[in-house]
Amino acid sequence: MTSVKKIVVLKGDYIGPEIMTAGLAVLEAATRNETFAYELIDAPFGGDGIDRAGDPLPQSTINIAKQADAVLLSAIGGPKWDNMSRRPEQGLLEIRSQLNLFANIRPTKVTSVQIDRSPLKPEYVKNTDFVIVRELTSGAYFGKPRKLEEHQAIDTIYYNEQEVTRIMHQGFKLAQKRHKHVTIVDKSNVLATSKFWRKIANEVGKNYPDVAIDYYYVDAMTMAIMSKPATFDVVITPNLFGDILSDEAAQITGSIGQIPSMSIGENGPNLYEPIHGSAPDIAGQGIANPISMVNTVAMMLIESFDEKRIAAKMIASVDYIIKNHYVTPDMGGVMTTDEVTQKMIAYIKKHE
Amino acid sequence: MTSVKKIVVLKGDYIGPEIMTAGLAVLEAATRNETFAYELIDAPFGGDGIDRAGDPLPQSTINIAKQADAVLLSAIGGPKWDNMSRRPEQGLLEIRSQLNLFANIRPTKVTSVQIDRSPLKPEYVKNTDFVIVRELTSGAYFGKPRKLEEHQAIDTIYYNEQEVTRIMHQGFKLAQKRHKHVTIVDKSNVLATSKFWRKIANEVGKNYPDVAIDYYYVDAMTMAIMSKPATFDVVITPNLFGDILSDEAAQITGSIGQIPSMSIGENGPNLYEPIHGSAPDIAGQGIANPISMVNTVAMMLIESFDEKRIAAKMIASVDYIIKNHYVTPDMGGVMTTDEVTQKMIAYIKKHE
Ligand SMILES: CC(C)[C@H](C(=O)O)[C@@H](O)C(=O)O
Ligand SMILES: CC(C)[C@H](C(=O)O)[C@@H](O)C(=O)O
Repeated sequence: MTSVKKIVVLKGDYIGPEIMTAGLAVLEAATRNETFAYELIDAPFGGDGIDRAGDPLPQSTINIAKQADAVLLSAIGGPKWDNMSRRPEQGLLEIRSQLNLFANIRPTKVTSVQIDRSPLKPEYVKNTDFVIVRELTSGAYFGKPRKLEEHQAIDTIYYNEQEVTRIMHQGFKLAQKRHKHVTIVDKSNVLATSKFWRKIANEVGKNYPDVAIDYYYVDAMTMAIMSKPATFDVVITPNLFGDILSDEAAQITGSIGQIPSMSIGENGPNLYEPIHGSAPDIAGQGIANPISMVNTVAMMLIESFDEKRIAAKMIASVDYIIKNHYVTPDMGGVMTTDEVTQKMIAYIKKHE
Repeated sequence: MTSVKKIVVLKGDYIGPEIMTAGLAVLEAATRNETFAYELIDAPFGGDGIDRAGDPLPQSTINIAKQADAVLLSAIGGPKWDNMSRRPEQGLLEIRSQLNLFANIRPTKVTSVQIDRSPLKPEYVKNTDFVIVRELTSGAYFGKPRKLEEHQAIDTIYYNEQEVTRIMHQGFKLAQKRHKHVTIVDKSNVLATSKFWRKIANEVGKNYPDVAIDYYYVDAMTMAIMSKPATFDVVITPNLFGDILSDEAAQITGSIGQIPSMSIGENGPNLYEPIHGSAPDIAGQGIANPISMVNTVAMMLIESFDEKRIAAKMIASVDYIIKNHYVTPDMGGVMTTDEVTQKMIAYIKKHE
């Protein structure tokens, strides 16, 4: 007997609920004739958390999430809550920390179907297929002291050995399953934490003699992501640099509305979310691109539940709508979120 | 009577001396029939400082620089000194700090002549013409404590009111001379120093009612630099983000071997340098691209000495060699550094 998987749904803000609805509808279609059983547990979070429960990360949500098999998030934040002392983003930082989601995995892949969408010339992006492994629960995001005073302000970048060691193992293991090439990104010609980062990368790397290592300074890496993205496989980088570089990497695909991501904990559930934001400017119009959320759900099926066949159905439906240009305005199409979703569902039903 | 301008020459490492020689030769040609009088003062610095005087920033060099009218630097650092406790880069950080060079100005311009060199599709880069104003003597580069211990490491990001206020005025004043549009880049949804940065930007901005302001998070900015670079005019950003974003911006021109930069002090001399590094891989082969250094000297003539006509001669000679494809291998040409330099000199002599 298969157990029922508990999926916590954080539906998010602005376009968040719109794409979450779409992603879950496609999941339902793809699991119709399957034994995979799941339960969806709605919980308030982000701006929605503030509105429904008075906090971007209510204690009840963290309790539920800790007992789940996976956490599914859409996108949070927006002008409605920007002037609050605890903003939606604060909830995101805290859920990462409380679920111990220390590794954030962001794939950058440019397929031949999508190559024309890139702002880069095709000869620069072709064959791009790398993954950024971003440290997610330490570094500049969590270091203490952090002070905002009247005449000065301070942030602290902090890393200890255990934090850097575990993210390195994560990255090197991933490289072993891919093309056995790790790129360490830091600013070790200036920052002490980066010198430390590079030293541990070196040590951990010795345990993976089959994996090649190279090193980039973060500034030079922004150039290489544009000038030779196809040369990378697994990029391991501290929290703040990972935030910056993964957005740049998303942009070279020209398809930020399509990219999923995964944050990995040590024992608890993984968290899955599209990499884009809550797009307040287009919210409520029914035109948000559902692809990222469908890909995010597929990523969850593969990584948390090993349900590759169901994920493949969902991904095939995404390929189908892209090839036939059944897409939303951000991709040059004329369809609504719901129309695109129905096309995906129809495709899945037809091919079973 | 015009006074003789004192220019301190820090010839640098690897390709540094090769391009410095070229830049100074073109300067000599361009000033032949002019009243502009200058004296070049060679001083050890960077790797060359370690080799000739035992330190990347010898006290004698700092003394000389403080009394100069301008400081001209090529590029420093490289594998020869990478394992030293005081590396060449340390000298660079210290000269910035000791000369109080708080604002680093890096132009990003894509002309119609150069548009094909960009890795971006022409429709994305056309009309790009913006300037990054990077804070250069505080932030993550200089904050204390900075500790590299056996099991942990710490860096500090620090900003005070005076530091942020002066860089803001610098940026807003520049915008008034340009297209009256300032973009503030920070990570104020996470960092205290960025919240502080944005607050002061807002206050200082009130003194410049003719200048429009907008705000980007640094991660989103890496996307915008690729997807809509022509929408920016003056970008003001903290030290670390400026390091990262200015390299990305350089890459969209596809011409990093051509871009000059200027660092501005409060009372002392400005420092001028190309934005690229010392390229150890091609040093000694006589094929380094001299264009960045010629543009750097031209920038110095304009900004420190108001010698626009001489600078115009130099810039015209650069346009000439690019148009005629008299260029080094990095630009797809077959000429040596010296051959390109002679072409520039011949052009200048012929057109006087
Ligand atoms: C919303 C923000 C706090 C967050 C971050 O900086 O980590 C986002 O940019 C991301 O990359 O997930
Ligand atoms: C060499 C290095 C210390 C320097 C910096 O990080 O500032 C360089 O990258 C630059 O941008 O001038």
